[in-house]
Amino acid sequence: MYIYASLKFSIENDTLITTAIIGASGYSGAELLRLLTFRNDVRIVRVTAAASVGKKVEDLYPIFSGTIDLPYEPSDPFRLEGIDIVFVALPSGEAMNIVPHLLPRVERVIDLSGDFRLSSPSTYKEFYKHDHTAPHLLDEAVYGLPELNKDLITNAHLVANPGCYPTSVILPLLPALKREIISSQGIVINSLSGVSGAGRTSAIDLSFTEVNENIRAYKIGNHQHIPEIQSVLEKATGESICFSFVPHLVPITRGIYSTIYADLKVPMTEKEILDVYREFYRDAPFVRIRQHIPQIKDVVRTNYCDIGLSIESRSNRLILVSVIDNLGKGAAGQAIQNMNIMFGHPEDRGLL
Amino acid sequence: MYIYASLKFSIENDTLITTAIIGASGYSGAELLRLLTFRNDVRIVRVTAAASVGKKVEDLYPIFSGTIDLPYEPSDPFRLEGIDIVFVALPSGEAMNIVPHLLPRVERVIDLSGDFRLSSPSTYKEFYKHDHTAPHLLDEAVYGLPELNKDLITNAHLVANPGCYPTSVILPLLPALKREIISSQGIVINSLSGVSGAGRTSAIDLSFTEVNENIRAYKIGNHQHIPEIQSVLEKATGESICFSFVPHLVPITRGIYSTIYADLKVPMTEKEILDVYREFYRDAPFVRIRQHIPQIKDVVRTNYCDIGLSIESRSNRLILVSVIDNLGKGAAGQAIQNMNIMFGHPEDRGLL
Amino acid sequence: MYIYASLKFSIENDTLITTAIIGASGYSGAELLRLLTFRNDVRIVRVTAAASVGKKVEDLYPIFSGTIDLPYEPSDPFRLEGIDIVFVALPSGEAMNIVPHLLPRVERVIDLSGDFRLSSPSTYKEFYKHDHTAPHLLDEAVYGLPELNKDLITNAHLVANPGCYPTSVILPLLPALKREIISSQGIVINSLSGVSGAGRTSAIDLSFTEVNENIRAYKIGNHQHIPEIQSVLEKATGESICFSFVPHLVPITRGIYSTIYADLKVPMTEKEILDVYREFYRDAPFVRIRQHIPQIKDVVRTNYCDIGLSIESRSNRLILVSVIDNLGKGAAGQAIQNMNIMFGHPEDRGLL
Amino acid sequence: MYIYASLKFSIENDTLITTAIIGASGYSGAELLRLLTFRNDVRIVRVTAAASVGKKVEDLYPIFSGTIDLPYEPSDPFRLEGIDIVFVALPSGEAMNIVPHLLPRVERVIDLSGDFRLSSPSTYKEFYKHDHTAPHLLDEAVYGLPELNKDLITNAHLVANPGCYPTSVILPLLPALKREIISSQGIVINSLSGVSGAGRTSAIDLSFTEVNENIRAYKIGNHQHIPEIQSVLEKATGESICFSFVPHLVPITRGIYSTIYADLKVPMTEKEILDVYREFYRDAPFVRIRQHIPQIKDVVRTNYCDIGLSIESRSNRLILVSVIDNLGKGAAGQAIQNMNIMFGHPEDRGLL
Repeated sequence: MYIYASLKFSIENDTLITTAIIGASGYSGAELLRLLTFRNDVRIVRVTAAASVGKKVEDLYPIFSGTIDLPYEPSDPFRLEGIDIVFVALPSGEAMNIVPHLLPRVERVIDLSGDFRLSSPSTYKEFYKHDHTAPHLLDEAVYGLPELNKDLITNAHLVANPGCYPTSVILPLLPALKREIISSQGIVINSLSGVSGAGRTSAIDLSFTEVNENIRAYKIGNHQHIPEIQSVLEKATGESICFSFVPHLVPITRGIYSTIYADLKVPMTEKEILDVYREFYRDAPFVRIRQHIPQIKDVVRTNYCDIGLSIESRSNRLILVSVIDNLGKGAAGQAIQNMNIMFGHPEDRGLL
Repeated sequence: MYIYASLKFSIENDTLITTAIIGASGYSGAELLRLLTFRNDVRIVRVTAAASVGKKVEDLYPIFSGTIDLPYEPSDPFRLEGIDIVFVALPSGEAMNIVPHLLPRVERVIDLSGDFRLSSPSTYKEFYKHDHTAPHLLDEAVYGLPELNKDLITNAHLVANPGCYPTSVILPLLPALKREIISSQGIVINSLSGVSGAGRTSAIDLSFTEVNENIRAYKIGNHQHIPEIQSVLEKATGESICFSFVPHLVPITRGIYSTIYADLKVPMTEKEILDVYREFYRDAPFVRIRQHIPQIKDVVRTNYCDIGLSIESRSNRLILVSVIDNLGKGAAGQAIQNMNIMFGHPEDRGLL
Repeated sequence: MYIYASLKFSIENDTLITTAIIGASGYSGAELLRLLTFRNDVRIVRVTAAASVGKKVEDLYPIFSGTIDLPYEPSDPFRLEGIDIVFVALPSGEAMNIVPHLLPRVERVIDLSGDFRLSSPSTYKEFYKHDHTAPHLLDEAVYGLPELNKDLITNAHLVANPGCYPTSVILPLLPALKREIISSQGIVINSLSGVSGAGRTSAIDLSFTEVNENIRAYKIGNHQHIPEIQSVLEKATGESICFSFVPHLVPITRGIYSTIYADLKVPMTEKEILDVYREFYRDAPFVRIRQHIPQIKDVVRTNYCDIGLSIESRSNRLILVSVIDNLGKGAAGQAIQNMNIMFGHPEDRGLL
Repeated sequence: MYIYASLKFSIENDTLITTAIIGASGYSGAELLRLLTFRNDVRIVRVTAAASVGKKVEDLYPIFSGTIDLPYEPSDPFRLEGIDIVFVALPSGEAMNIVPHLLPRVERVIDLSGDFRLSSPSTYKEFYKHDHTAPHLLDEAVYGLPELNKDLITNAHLVANPGCYPTSVILPLLPALKREIISSQGIVINSLSGVSGAGRTSAIDLSFTEVNENIRAYKIGNHQHIPEIQSVLEKATGESICFSFVPHLVPITRGIYSTIYADLKVPMTEKEILDVYREFYRDAPFVRIRQHIPQIKDVVRTNYCDIGLSIESRSNRLILVSVIDNLGKGAAGQAIQNMNIMFGHPEDRGLL
């Protein structure tokens, strides 16, 4: 039987949503643009990029030539008055200077930076290495992982879109922790990231010659996604969680691959655990529990998080593998999913 | 001003088109599947793949898990009776054994192989190294380059979808030859192809270790796309054309990059030539005449053929650069474009 | 001060060593050839490759054109009578059929396959999926990790050259286990391998299009290097060791990257542990204890194993990272190192 | 018969050569370092890199850890007094400010930049976009292509090491032009370069995400290697030469691949032309005339220029393909070859 995926892209009688993208010159911004071209129910009113004022979207991204005809404007929140939803795709540290001015002027804000994901300003400072300039908004912001917080997202004024690593880690760990399949201590998370995750930026370390045919770990023990993973999991489970986390850069453009090792609490078969996972995510259109271990290419340019698992009987461990596209479910795709939820649309509209 | 690209994916009141894909296990077949999932006006009834009977599409392409739920069936034309349009994505040499049995049974056939692109059985044999088994169909088949043969395609029963290299070469050369900007003699075509162009196949020469960090020319002087380029250009211009053509394999997955060198017949500025090109393709939604030299990434996963040009005054030559996605405009995308034309739909429906 | 590395390549008055390579058509065989061209004290007498008889080395590897002028011969042990040292670079399962016939005829044998690395025929069968046909040689074979078994290698008749993963795992774990820095239980080993590790072979799974822009785990829980790692570590420490191991294929040609997580037994600083490691390997010319976490490119085309480490205080774990070139220290380089030891030469002669 | 390549690396009784590398932080400088570690007859006294003073070579290139223990010093020519040979690996435009101060102080200078390759200061200004500050040295400098200028190099005080593209173009064209096999007019040169050719530099255009899965032409019609190719060929043949040249960036780290199209002047077979080429280069140890079309991987990390050819009878053209490693024969390898010639050593010492 053939499934009618195309229904997702239907013209609706819904009111047109107006939107703007702040920081639309980066890869997440460009992916938002790409995904929004599939939508006839959303109208992009403005795109901003401080360093590209005077250029058009197609100057930086010629792939949009003939499809998107918009100039980059200054990132001025005052000019966005009355817009239905604004995506903030600025780097962490910059978003928090804009968002407080946006919130009183627009209907909804989805921030893709790390600025509103942690509830503690001091933890923020510890990992982001600078003070938080809008700590009063930390409690208001809703962590935008739809599989966890759908109801809260529906009514949120400010959504903090999750980080790419946290998305790839929290989704596979959540069922095993909440259903008490694994111990909350001694977890190991080994993650591999494509280079687009580092953003559209010039750096010798990110040049082709340095990245190609190479692999490197970075920020061992102090990556800013560590407190994000920890606080979300602890809040969701009510338990203290202890894990190791090492992120690595690998020579691919898009994708996050996480291999997670955890001690089994009770003897279970792979089939039994897969059943728990399938039940847990039965209403989540973008989490696919896979019979086999997934690969990056299974999800590139989609909004899926694919999860596979294996029991290693020798060590009595559950091994989980998750894959996402860091620009899809790890950034822009998830932001669109959040937008759909906030506007009462089918969660998967315009997404694949 | 923002352009409403999303209108392409609208639900229409048109009758539903039924389709089947013969040879749906290869990369072109998979790309057809991907593009058809965007369509709610097309229903895929069957997919076939002789070597994969018993498997499902998602077994070979897990990315379609949850989106396409179809089993591979044997490539039996008798079971396709009454289908509106059949895409044949078999290798050259195999398609010609199936197509004659399909034509009496189905409404329309688009063949993506090289089997029906040449009108001469002897030229076919010279370049494809085997006899043609259905030479009576060569005259009936319409060469499916929409920018050249739109009217013929509209009414065609059998469309021979162009090769990837020919698409990337004919589109940039056509305006310059037809408007007599360049000489028809002494043309040089240097083409670079991504590896997916070689198909989903096992071969040491195509293994990652051999292809990565490497470049190699192949089939110099005897590539099967040489007579295709020559005959199409000669038929279109009424002139004898002489060119050199060297295809090369480069370590990218998707894309064809052609650099073309031709002697200017008359003194013209780049601007004048760009104007001729823009005028020539003013009704072609998928040919973009670019102000600057295009790059592969400008067209990957789209149906565009981007063309840029430069006058090299030292040598009095016009240098043309074209880029396409070999699986998009070079195969599946163009096939969908042809289908749209054949069924009276907007040429760009469901395509980007 | 500049170090005189070039002294390694000196002409010596030593007797000329004669050698042959069985299975010289694969990547390990080719790397042996490359490394042996640096030597004027070794003379390659024959190279064999059953499937390439009639071809010359330069037909398969044109890089050797003008440097190595040898034909591939059949893999017949009887024709190798009297040769000083034979490298067997056949796949596991094939080597054990040749080696018993070689041993009586030649001075020394270094086998690069997995056939003589395990002492138990039943474990061999469990992981290699076929019976061992020369179990009487398992006790005789010396495991050729020079940093562990230098004395035994000196006098060995048959050396079992270690696997690439085990080399990258045993070297970083050995000091921490033997000096009781970490617990022998609950270790996690996450390894990434370049594609040349899969050998020179045709397979869709290894084609550029499938491997590029992708990552995939494989053989979780049943990789044949698991018992090799376990038995070598247990023999070296006298303790039972328990670890998880997941190997992944990443889109690079050469290199193994292992990230290892282990529980600290006692509180120690990074500096203290680095000091232990430096002391442990003070006489090992190819193990470099690095101040920072190493990267693949630090060791590609060398015989080095670089080791870096970090203490993750949050989890009280030691994180070790090791990198090798799978064809260098993981195969051919280590085999040359073993040869040097067997013939009483400086361990690092002809190696970088 | 096995060829004794290793004799190249012998200890000699020759006097020790002292050397320094100015600009040793870039890729050409690092490749010089790598190649010089093979030499026991050369002693690196100093390395300089203005922006890396205070760091050591191994800080930028950890692969040299334990092999090269040298600090980067300021690029001060006065501190290099009395050194036998200095390699200048600075960018074009910077070298010409240092070289005039070096020449009176050291025995020999090999400049790897483009600053001393052209004899006309006005052509230099046209293509390099700034004035030449040392035009009085242009006549003194010897163009360091050993296959063309061996005698001049022997006695040169200042050698201008050829560009990577020119090396890959001049070597294949020289025999055909000098032996009047091809016309000197209407030549097309299509070149592909690996990314290391752009140097160790930070730029969005050179980042992995932009380069990977992409191809782009650049500097069409105004690349600074155009006058270099033209003047060298015209001087060597005494004829006026006209050619098109388009360089492209491709996603590989090392290598230049040039496909050259030229009109045959007289009817000749491939075999006859190959014979002319073999005769022409019979004394050139690093030019290999290949029976088949060469590939990049045949020469990576070697000093070879491999040349293959094909006659395209349809167009009556000779198609030449050449491959080099841009850091080897295209830069550092060729510089070492020049040094060998200047010091009366075997041309191929320490090179592969």
